[in-house]
Amino acid sequence: MQCKKALEESGGDMEKAKIILRKASAAIASKKSDRELGAGIAAAYTHAGGAVVGAVVLACETDFVSRNPDFGKLAYDIAMHVAAMNPKFKTKEDVKDEDVRAAREVFAKEVESLPEASREKALTGKIDSFIKEKVLLDQPFVKNGDITVRELIDTGVQKFGEKIEVVRFERLSVK
Amino acid sequence: MQCKKALEESGGDMEKAKIILRKASAAIASKKSDRELGAGIAAAYTHAGGAVVGAVVLACETDFVSRNPDFGKLAYDIAMHVAAMNPKFKTKEDVKDEDVRAAREVFAKEVESLPEASREKALTGKIDSFIKEKVLLDQPFVKNGDITVRELIDTGVQKFGEKIEVVRFERLSVK
Repeated sequence: MQCKKALEESGGDMEKAKIILRKASAAIASKKSDRELGAGIAAAYTHAGGAVVGAVVLACETDFVSRNPDFGKLAYDIAMHVAAMNPKFKTKEDVKDEDVRAAREVFAKEVESLPEASREKALTGKIDSFIKEKVLLDQPFVKNGDITVRELIDTGVQKFGEKIEVVRFERLSVK
Repeated sequence: MQCKKALEESGGDMEKAKIILRKASAAIASKKSDRELGAGIAAAYTHAGGAVVGAVVLACETDFVSRNPDFGKLAYDIAMHVAAMNPKFKTKEDVKDEDVRAAREVFAKEVESLPEASREKALTGKIDSFIKEKVLLDQPFVKNGDITVRELIDTGVQKFGEKIEVVRFERLSVK
């Protein structure tokens, strides 16, 4: 139903329709964002051979949704994503000053050869993109690079009609 | 071979023989304790229904051992144990002063009604046993309460002939 509407709004352009749909699901997700998370599921993905484990707790509002196999699949997909993409932070807001400082130290050397006038801007750019790459919700989803993990979750919110949130994630690796 | 020897030493007493074997494997484990951990496996156990995930990194010396399915099973068993028994510390040495302080505050109320002379001793006893229950290597193994997790690992050391160590464990639960 919603797909048809989006396709009409976009004048039949599939790519435009996708963006309209994505915006719609983000809007729905934000409407549900003050609801209570009373249920959820813990899921783990072990990479073939056992070199890496990704694990998440994905919360929702009711057991009705948490028991849905498709919700379990969503949690499992995010666990797989965590194993593969090694995020360090859930959102940009979770990045601490000390993380920025550490990144600044690492990248300071890389911009040393630049003229002084452009050095600070280059450094800030490097730090921003480095950190953005480590933020789970901003990372491109490992199984579909066209959407971010945030958009994947927003799609879930739309599908299940409940607020959904990654409340914890861990990645364990041998080396 | 070693079993036969232990049985002889124990004069045919099975329980005694088990203890002799356990001591032997602890001795072997301690001999190997300064070797290098160059390999390992990450394993996860998801409790039916997805309420809890236990995950561990179990290290050994070589890929030869880490690729052994029995080593994978040992890691999986420890992950299951972590999910079920919710350990907080790997060893007693990992318990921090603040953990002891927090336990002291919790238990102080429980011993308030005791005569002052015996209060401190009762409190120390409560704290010690509370903390011991939270130490992974000292916990009774969830699938066989006759041995601790440390003894389970020592048996692995004897079996695989390499140093084995839990280098990390995590437990993720919905509530």
